[in-house]
Amino acid sequence: MELYIFYNGYFYPQSAPLLSVLDRGLCFGDGLFELIRCIGGKFLLFDRHIQRMRKSAAFLEMPFPYRKDELLDYARKLVKVNGIKDGELYLEITRGEAPRYHEFPRDTKPNFFMVLNALRQMPENCREKGVKVITFPDIRWGYCHLKTINLLPNILAKEMAKKKGAYEALFIRGDEKGTYLTEGSSSSIFAIEGDVLITPEEDNILPGVTRAIVIEIAKQVNMKITERRLYMNEYKACDEAFLTSTVSEVLPVIRIDNKKIAKGIPGPKTEKLQSVYRSLMQSYLQ
Amino acid sequence: MELYIFYNGYFYPQSAPLLSVLDRGLCFGDGLFELIRCIGGKFLLFDRHIQRMRKSAAFLEMPFPYRKDELLDYARKLVKVNGIKDGELYLEITRGEAPRYHEFPRDTKPNFFMVLNALRQMPENCREKGVKVITFPDIRWGYCHLKTINLLPNILAKEMAKKKGAYEALFIRGDEKGTYLTEGSSSSIFAIEGDVLITPEEDNILPGVTRAIVIEIAKQVNMKITERRLYMNEYKACDEAFLTSTVSEVLPVIRIDNKKIAKGIPGPKTEKLQSVYRSLMQSYLQ
Repeated sequence: MELYIFYNGYFYPQSAPLLSVLDRGLCFGDGLFELIRCIGGKFLLFDRHIQRMRKSAAFLEMPFPYRKDELLDYARKLVKVNGIKDGELYLEITRGEAPRYHEFPRDTKPNFFMVLNALRQMPENCREKGVKVITFPDIRWGYCHLKTINLLPNILAKEMAKKKGAYEALFIRGDEKGTYLTEGSSSSIFAIEGDVLITPEEDNILPGVTRAIVIEIAKQVNMKITERRLYMNEYKACDEAFLTSTVSEVLPVIRIDNKKIAKGIPGPKTEKLQSVYRSLMQSYLQ
Repeated sequence: MELYIFYNGYFYPQSAPLLSVLDRGLCFGDGLFELIRCIGGKFLLFDRHIQRMRKSAAFLEMPFPYRKDELLDYARKLVKVNGIKDGELYLEITRGEAPRYHEFPRDTKPNFFMVLNALRQMPENCREKGVKVITFPDIRWGYCHLKTINLLPNILAKEMAKKKGAYEALFIRGDEKGTYLTEGSSSSIFAIEGDVLITPEEDNILPGVTRAIVIEIAKQVNMKITERRLYMNEYKACDEAFLTSTVSEVLPVIRIDNKKIAKGIPGPKTEKLQSVYRSLMQSYLQ
């Protein structure tokens, strides 16, 4: 049976034609998205995701058409109608349909949709074995703190990773001190040196929801946390590395551009954070 | 009567629901567009626009589903069905519909649509009187040579222009020598100093179709042409300035950020290029 999706207050089969060619998401990338884990029919950190989406919408002067509790209610209906209890909830808002002029249209109703899919297949045992990553130039725009649908650089990076047999592509920039890593095409990044957890500062990156939780957990387990530029030579020489995202959770990184990180196996501190995160997930469900 | 648009080989009312929430243009900005002038039922520089679109599609490994003559034939049908002889033809291609994973899907059919609108209303007598522009930081990504639908920076810039009562926003970047201008949010830019026409080099800007024609015309009328970085202090002190685009044609710029350019009226060389461009348009129709 085809999946049902939520669109502007109603439920439709996911392949139903719904948007016209006037939608500004389609013509201008004038939209925002979120991805939320669904576990046992409940939603992980639902509040934080909606909060971020609302904040970005306000930044773009885009009306936000639903209250959080309304969205949660619709999301729960998607669980029921689709019989999916463990999955990924994709939410998107666009500025709506209007004649195609760049400036914001007046009195346009946003389009809002949610798609609940079963959890995607991850590479076998990747959480236990770790994954390979590659680097890709950070060619993205200047407002990466917004989770927008202007994702061409991200899909080009991910496609390159796939072609090279890697799980993820990490964006790199340069400054006078060398090459530094910013984040993955759809993940945040961390390195561990001794008992210090290093993650890139919020300098034109997305403030990841999982990233924030992992920082909180690291504090609880008495790690030192530093948010600053993470240089390539450090990353290659670090004791442990991992990435985080809604879908990846805490995922060990064991190779970058075919250079082994430490011994090329997941490190003990990463495994600790991974297991604490997993055990805490239940308490973050809504 | 509602306008009819072209979508994947058929004609539909423009507000018809056609695309599903799985379209990659909608979820990733994974699409390209063009805008072509329609004059007397014919299309201005149709070949060049399609050529550019094809080239960008090839860069993004996106299949291009139509031959140029097929598209021209469909575009002419839009003229007939809508009774619009003078207008703007908007073309867009997206990578099509697929489950939402970043990497390119295999065997997905692109979605292709064309919308023919009557020519938009321009500010009264703007071609004779000139327009004001503002500056906006060039926060765009690194592949601006592609005419993609990742246009959030462009709409933010244009919205700012509108809020400030200006016609267009010009993107600015900085280097060790100062602030320089790159292009408008939907236009190319030129300055004239003495008998030299200066336009920014193709350094992460869109190679504009009208820009290329104007450069050809300038050569024919024996102007010297320089493609290089155009600094803000030069621009403010230049003899004449104008912008070009499919819709704007050759449009004099008389103020930038409330600083008058020269005497604050269109210059004679700009008017010359404007009139030659206008007179040549007929010969570029297809």
